[in-house]
Amino acid sequence: MSAYLEDLVIGEEVEYGAYTFTAEDIKRFAAAYDPQRFHLDEEEGRKTHFGGLVASGWHTAAVWMKVYVAHQQRLDAADRAAGRPSAQRGPSPGFRELKWLRPVRPGDTLTYRGRIMSARPSASRPGWGLVERFNWAENQDGERVFEFVSVAFLERRPGA
Amino acid sequence: MSAYLEDLVIGEEVEYGAYTFTAEDIKRFAAAYDPQRFHLDEEEGRKTHFGGLVASGWHTAAVWMKVYVAHQQRLDAADRAAGRPSAQRGPSPGFRELKWLRPVRPGDTLTYRGRIMSARPSASRPGWGLVERFNWAENQDGERVFEFVSVAFLERRPGA
Repeated sequence: MSAYLEDLVIGEEVEYGAYTFTAEDIKRFAAAYDPQRFHLDEEEGRKTHFGGLVASGWHTAAVWMKVYVAHQQRLDAADRAAGRPSAQRGPSPGFRELKWLRPVRPGDTLTYRGRIMSARPSASRPGWGLVERFNWAENQDGERVFEFVSVAFLERRPGA
Repeated sequence: MSAYLEDLVIGEEVEYGAYTFTAEDIKRFAAAYDPQRFHLDEEEGRKTHFGGLVASGWHTAAVWMKVYVAHQQRLDAADRAAGRPSAQRGPSPGFRELKWLRPVRPGDTLTYRGRIMSARPSASRPGWGLVERFNWAENQDGERVFEFVSVAFLERRPGA
């Protein structure tokens, strides 16, 4: 079920989903947005401290969004199927403390998860609240490779 | 010229370059990484608080990287042409305080700039330093739409 602000449980963890990075994905993102040699070519990557081809950090972040949106769309679809309303999600004013902790290499499968840090009514937007989440990704070896704190608007329960 | 750590001037501002977001760009990024309706379709965007099609915030960030890498590659090319060595750039451990301040719409041209906040030798990596930069983008109306603080490794001047 898509949660309204009042439904959120502080500290609750959610698994958004998983994504496997292929060499083709890594090179396609890099060619468009981050054409550094260690993101474009295995051999060139081997000459650097990375020791091989690695994903752009912005690619790891963009895939977080992809996996998170797919998760939310599954919740919305379940609401529609059950005839329930879905909470509207608003824009994000920005993010904090993003860390790229370890390289992401071809064949790595990242599992993205999040934990609710805080939820509070918005002072400036009636009917809306602001949600802080700690988000992270682990690879198939259980190593954390990525984390950041997101902030986003979320609809309050009507009548709340 | 590509700067080594010791060449950086605290407070110095650099213009990295500009980029015009087309509707096609916005939709292509969104389809791959952020398929929310206001990033995919003008009419759907008009039904939301955005009032039209807007770029994914991660797209604005990925284009920062694109423009920054192109800027660095121009400096490296000038070094090669002049027979000078170029400073090696290392990985980024992450970033801080990313803010999406205003929507980016089709036809908007963003100019990306940065200012050196700090530069210090790395305690853990001999020969390298860590550079903090405040980065931002303004649209064609001079409105700031995006900002964040980046942190990245940069080679020290050999012998420094």
